[in-house]
Amino acid sequence: MPIPAQPYKGTRDFYPKNSVINQDSNTNYTIYQRYIIDTWRRTMIGLGFSEYDASIIENAEIYLAKSGEELGSKQLYNFVDKGNRSIALRPEMTPTLARMITAKEQNLRYPLRWFSIPNCFRYEAPQKGRSREFWQLNVDIIGLADNAVDQEILFVANQVMQAFGGGNNYKIRVGNRQVLDKFILENNLDSKKVQIYKLLDEWKKLGTIEKQKLSASNLTLSQNDFELCKSFVDNSKLDFDFPVNIIGDNSIVRGIAYYTGMVFEAFDNDNSNSRSMFGGGRYDNLLELFGGENLPCIGFGAGDMVLMEYLIHYKLLDGHPAFETWKKANYPEVVGVMVLDPANLGLVYKEVLPGLSQRNKTWDIDYDYSRAENKRYESLKKRGCTEIIKV
Amino acid sequence: MPIPAQPYKGTRDFYPKNSVINQDSNTNYTIYQRYIIDTWRRTMIGLGFSEYDASIIENAEIYLAKSGEELGSKQLYNFVDKGNRSIALRPEMTPTLARMITAKEQNLRYPLRWFSIPNCFRYEAPQKGRSREFWQLNVDIIGLADNAVDQEILFVANQVMQAFGGGNNYKIRVGNRQVLDKFILENNLDSKKVQIYKLLDEWKKLGTIEKQKLSASNLTLSQNDFELCKSFVDNSKLDFDFPVNIIGDNSIVRGIAYYTGMVFEAFDNDNSNSRSMFGGGRYDNLLELFGGENLPCIGFGAGDMVLMEYLIHYKLLDGHPAFETWKKANYPEVVGVMVLDPANLGLVYKEVLPGLSQRNKTWDIDYDYSRAENKRYESLKKRGCTEIIKV
Repeated sequence: MPIPAQPYKGTRDFYPKNSVINQDSNTNYTIYQRYIIDTWRRTMIGLGFSEYDASIIENAEIYLAKSGEELGSKQLYNFVDKGNRSIALRPEMTPTLARMITAKEQNLRYPLRWFSIPNCFRYEAPQKGRSREFWQLNVDIIGLADNAVDQEILFVANQVMQAFGGGNNYKIRVGNRQVLDKFILENNLDSKKVQIYKLLDEWKKLGTIEKQKLSASNLTLSQNDFELCKSFVDNSKLDFDFPVNIIGDNSIVRGIAYYTGMVFEAFDNDNSNSRSMFGGGRYDNLLELFGGENLPCIGFGAGDMVLMEYLIHYKLLDGHPAFETWKKANYPEVVGVMVLDPANLGLVYKEVLPGLSQRNKTWDIDYDYSRAENKRYESLKKRGCTEIIKV
Repeated sequence: MPIPAQPYKGTRDFYPKNSVINQDSNTNYTIYQRYIIDTWRRTMIGLGFSEYDASIIENAEIYLAKSGEELGSKQLYNFVDKGNRSIALRPEMTPTLARMITAKEQNLRYPLRWFSIPNCFRYEAPQKGRSREFWQLNVDIIGLADNAVDQEILFVANQVMQAFGGGNNYKIRVGNRQVLDKFILENNLDSKKVQIYKLLDEWKKLGTIEKQKLSASNLTLSQNDFELCKSFVDNSKLDFDFPVNIIGDNSIVRGIAYYTGMVFEAFDNDNSNSRSMFGGGRYDNLLELFGGENLPCIGFGAGDMVLMEYLIHYKLLDGHPAFETWKKANYPEVVGVMVLDPANLGLVYKEVLPGLSQRNKTWDIDYDYSRAENKRYESLKKRGCTEIIKV
């Protein structure tokens, strides 16, 4: 019985678009994916960051140590290798970053401005905009506690969106754990800290004041507590002057643990895409896991699939100058080379093709000597050749 | 107890070179690796090939079906996922290619000129030039039986080496299974086919006539059989006229199974690196595994690590025009931005950095306001800044 030719559940095959006759929308994803990864890389290098990388296989303990969390258990691709080592496919890049910094902690030139574009795996139900394998831009500044770095990381996050021609169709919403904790302390809400974190964390998703009120009451917060929280959110502001896409939003919390200062999330202005596009913040406890000295860190991660949905929705791909400029720089025009006689092959490889290279063209070669020339011409045209030469 | 910060056995961490103070040779590998992958991609697109890709996780059965072979068992990273599916990390790309073609067999515009640059995993003992994770350039032309394609794939393989400034330090040695089988048939050696394949397959490695003779005798081949084989190898020739780097070599066999026509392997001219650098050939049975119709295929695969050793050995990296041109195009000069007062940060993000971008420069920002300016200057210099501005 033949083996099924489908890819593993929740993963994607990337076909070259020009090879497929009856194209479906997935056929475009190959070049869009390449565009996203290339643009991330080019933009991050331009913003003064250096690329790091590591194997997709890690020792499983670096994830399982955070036991109880979802990534440490249900969603983790963890296995035992043939040498009886407990290994895992990375579900995120931060533990790898922490491991790499710990390994050379005394031997690095701080501050580090680092980025990486790893593919990651999570065992979860595949759905629109989410698959078991995804690519993620990871950006971190390590070893700088100055508040200026909060501004720099927001500047960087905004530049990455602008590199795709993102315009003003998104907002980066900025909160701060220290401001939140000060609010809690000043209002004697310390005993209700977890409930307040939870309420604010879902504030935007709840959307209406009625739903927010109901949630507060379900969390056993009083009417007065609720009013305090509402006023706290309503009075959100940003300490520094920034482009229109970046705004203060005291409801941005990003869960209970991990972050220690500024936190932020980017959202599509179109509410039909309500998922966070990317997010991050300050976390100064990075190296705890490996027993290293702690370092101030700030960073964010952005996934490829939700960005691709955004680029498709706002028509920022085919036809948009940012995409077309990239495409033109990376994919030369294709010249059809119709070989008329096998005796000419030496000429083709030694002179014709190198000559096309010098003109920054690429080619598609047709060896179908016995076929009528007009048919061969049509066939090369269909394959995307903008010019056809006979040899 | 802290978790060890080393990467998983047999895999590599890629650190940005400029971040590491006491650099070891591995620190360079990050940028060399990026250069190899970028150059492979740019060269293959320039040669008229289209990129495909797929997940590193495959259903394990596509490897295990070829049972008995090393890749199908001992070297395979195979596991069971949380949904009880039998999965594996790809040890090579060809089964994935076969799967993808079968899935759309009637819907593809042949011939296909496809390439991919996957990372692959094999469970084997790590050693110099070999790790458990490696990257591989895979090149295939699918759906063309014409002999011209044999020439085209050799042209392509040679162009890939030339793209790295490979010069004349390697040879691509070309054999042919059909020529070999004809030799066997014409000399009535049919009953000794397996032994002859084995003898020729190790011919080059054996090196001297004494060792070759001994091996023939160990394989129970007669003195006359040996003389026939030697004469067959000595009379190697190429049917077509090609650059000096490509030569006929009837001892090139590439194992017993799989290939059906031309086969080739590239070797470093320096015998201290005796491993094959890359190899491939014609195989017309690609789709058998998935029950598809067979298609003529020809292709080759090249690994990143053995190429990197070659590039280091022949000084084709730092200082070589091919590498330096690539580096200049992809890594802008770094300008040090010394911020003198936090009040200037708005100016920095809104004007100074965008201005540097327009001049195709990148930057390294120093926020260390309280430190003496000459110290800050020295520190930015050490971090690689070619120019320093104060804001």
